[in-house]
Amino acid sequence: MRTLEHPEKERFSLDAVLAALADPVRRRIVAQLAGGHDDQACIAFDLPVTRSTSTHHFRVLREAGVIDQRYRGTAILNTLRRADLDERFPGLLQAVIDAHAATLTGGREGRAAPAG
Amino acid sequence: MRTLEHPEKERFSLDAVLAALADPVRRRIVAQLAGGHDDQACIAFDLPVTRSTSTHHFRVLREAGVIDQRYRGTAILNTLRRADLDERFPGLLQAVIDAHAATLTGGREGRAAPAG
Repeated sequence: MRTLEHPEKERFSLDAVLAALADPVRRRIVAQLAGGHDDQACIAFDLPVTRSTSTHHFRVLREAGVIDQRYRGTAILNTLRRADLDERFPGLLQAVIDAHAATLTGGREGRAAPAG
Repeated sequence: MRTLEHPEKERFSLDAVLAALADPVRRRIVAQLAGGHDDQACIAFDLPVTRSTSTHHFRVLREAGVIDQRYRGTAILNTLRRADLDERFPGLLQAVIDAHAATLTGGREGRAAPAG
């Protein structure tokens, strides 16, 4: 069985976690995982990007320690590492999830609505 | 008097704020502002980078809405836009400041201690 590399929680980098969460597609993945069950397959995410870009985004999240990924057959199942993140960076994940939700309901996100 | 451009709080981009905070030098600036008084001059920050890199980091923070910068004579004074950030993204700034402090006391940050 192939396995995927994950950082131990003691080795999480705040730089990497914040950079991972600084992308709207990756926050969408995180928000779906936070609002749903564990072990969601990559194909269960309706993302506005190509499949290879999607794979890239999942990998960035995994390598930062934000999600756990494991194979089941040919599918990859994704789970939010909420407990690990909350232990290392208390309050951070939820603050980002809340802020992401607010940008969706507020309807204004910088990239989507450039000035001018 | 020259003035510097700042985004209105309604136009803050969560992408830009998180990307701005994903750098350890910029978090150091934010932490110093959070723990001190308003209107701290750029030269009051002892940063491990060149002056032009330092200027770049302050600009990234300003353009994301994290800090306010204004001229006083030839100096630039910096103030954390804590109220604006707290209004737009409740809890986010403090969670990042706390996480940054924890990485300093914990002594492990991914970039500083590469695996191997």
